[in-house]
Amino acid sequence: MRDFSSDHRWLSINTATIRKQRGVEQPLLDILESCAREGIRAVSPWRDQVAAAGLAATARTVRAHGLELSGYCRGGMFTATDGGGLEAAHEDNRRAVDEACELASRCLVLVVGSLPGALQGKAAHKNLSLARQQVFDGIGKLLDYARAQGMPLAIEPLHPMYAADRACVNTLEQALDICDALDPERSGALGVAVDMYHVWWDPKLKAQIERAGKTRLLAFHVCDWLTPTNDLLNDRGMMGDGVIDIPQARGWMESQGFDGFCEVEIFSNTWWQRSGDETLQACIERHRTCV
Amino acid sequence: MRDFSSDHRWLSINTATIRKQRGVEQPLLDILESCAREGIRAVSPWRDQVAAAGLAATARTVRAHGLELSGYCRGGMFTATDGGGLEAAHEDNRRAVDEACELASRCLVLVVGSLPGALQGKAAHKNLSLARQQVFDGIGKLLDYARAQGMPLAIEPLHPMYAADRACVNTLEQALDICDALDPERSGALGVAVDMYHVWWDPKLKAQIERAGKTRLLAFHVCDWLTPTNDLLNDRGMMGDGVIDIPQARGWMESQGFDGFCEVEIFSNTWWQRSGDETLQACIERHRTCV
Repeated sequence: MRDFSSDHRWLSINTATIRKQRGVEQPLLDILESCAREGIRAVSPWRDQVAAAGLAATARTVRAHGLELSGYCRGGMFTATDGGGLEAAHEDNRRAVDEACELASRCLVLVVGSLPGALQGKAAHKNLSLARQQVFDGIGKLLDYARAQGMPLAIEPLHPMYAADRACVNTLEQALDICDALDPERSGALGVAVDMYHVWWDPKLKAQIERAGKTRLLAFHVCDWLTPTNDLLNDRGMMGDGVIDIPQARGWMESQGFDGFCEVEIFSNTWWQRSGDETLQACIERHRTCV
Repeated sequence: MRDFSSDHRWLSINTATIRKQRGVEQPLLDILESCAREGIRAVSPWRDQVAAAGLAATARTVRAHGLELSGYCRGGMFTATDGGGLEAAHEDNRRAVDEACELASRCLVLVVGSLPGALQGKAAHKNLSLARQQVFDGIGKLLDYARAQGMPLAIEPLHPMYAADRACVNTLEQALDICDALDPERSGALGVAVDMYHVWWDPKLKAQIERAGKTRLLAFHVCDWLTPTNDLLNDRGMMGDGVIDIPQARGWMESQGFDGFCEVEIFSNTWWQRSGDETLQACIERHRTCV
């Protein structure tokens, strides 16, 4: 297992972690600048941030700072109530693949979606099986395109508390079943993003990480689960402040040969109240001691 | 599948549903009286409510109204930081079995516990495997006692968002693995409580209900998952107000021969703001139309 105690060369910052400081949306190029200044070598930006900064400008800034993308957030949201909606989702995902290529990301992270309309507060139906079928079909179709572009797709199982509105893929086992069905040859074109916040509770976590193996372990995201958790979305903890045994899971990942970045992704009303620099410093410190 | 549309003979009320009306704790005997008045034939009370009302008085009132207990809430919380704590948990669980017997409950529901101290905000450790082992051992030990008393134990898998503080058994599959290990002969002494709020998201739900079969399906709890959900504990929805396809799951249960009560268990800051009678009326109405 890699020694993280003396440097932060394997730290990546998901840019959502420092995007809303004190209620003010931080420009992506400033965030990239801050990360580079702290000696951080990788980031994972969000599509809306990239759109606001401009794709070309973002790509230039990433290259100028010698940054890498541990992943690109995010494709997915494959479900819809009709064929037109499914096609629109597919087209949007093709663009996400193109952007990920332009930014030379290691993978495109997929948050797959679930019941149409649920995220807006009113689900169009309750048929989770249908949503899961649409997701399966959507990933299959996108895989053809992404494979041709050389962009790996990383299915991110989301915590079951997001099963209605954000993702109907909720366990690593379920994600790997999809991988096995769509990419039985383990080509590297399809795999998973293991986000500890979503999967830490799973009694089958170790077994499924072993099942995934190096070719399917495309990304590793860390933060912590707080007790109590006061908000379903924006109360993630800094590593070390909660109950997740992150080093144990990183050990399982690395036993399979995972040698990529550990991406810190913290949505937190608490941390967003602090300065971006303070939060980055905490990420660096906790990466050394708690990851 | 049973027809629920014209009566509510299979409705049970978990007494937490109407215990905190407008911030005032409602006496259990009053709740039982209200249920009986509405023609409700079964309830599931909580141990602290029974303790406050007195066990003998509760048993008398239950009998006087011709009520049945679809389950008794609850045993469990098996984990501890030392042997003394484990023994104290065992003793407390023996008393819960005795009380369930006195009340002639159909089963004792087990919320198994997880990381010691987490529910109080400070977990003593992060070793989920250890907690799971303690739970396994604790259920095994209690089973000997409960079997002798003739009281079935129903393991309730809790939603993964409670994995740190309330229960480290988080899927039906995991609960059934415990059942298979401790009661391979399927004696009826050990089974599961299927609470839709906790398991609705599970891609293996149907398969695991089939695996459980009639002898292991000891209880069925219903409410709904709201989008958005604003509180991890007390924002459960009334059946029909959320995204859970309850009739589909009831069909799966009944295909296995389940013929027990459908217990409504709603922790809701919203419903607790209304009168108990209004909430009971809603339960009856939705039981006919949405369960």
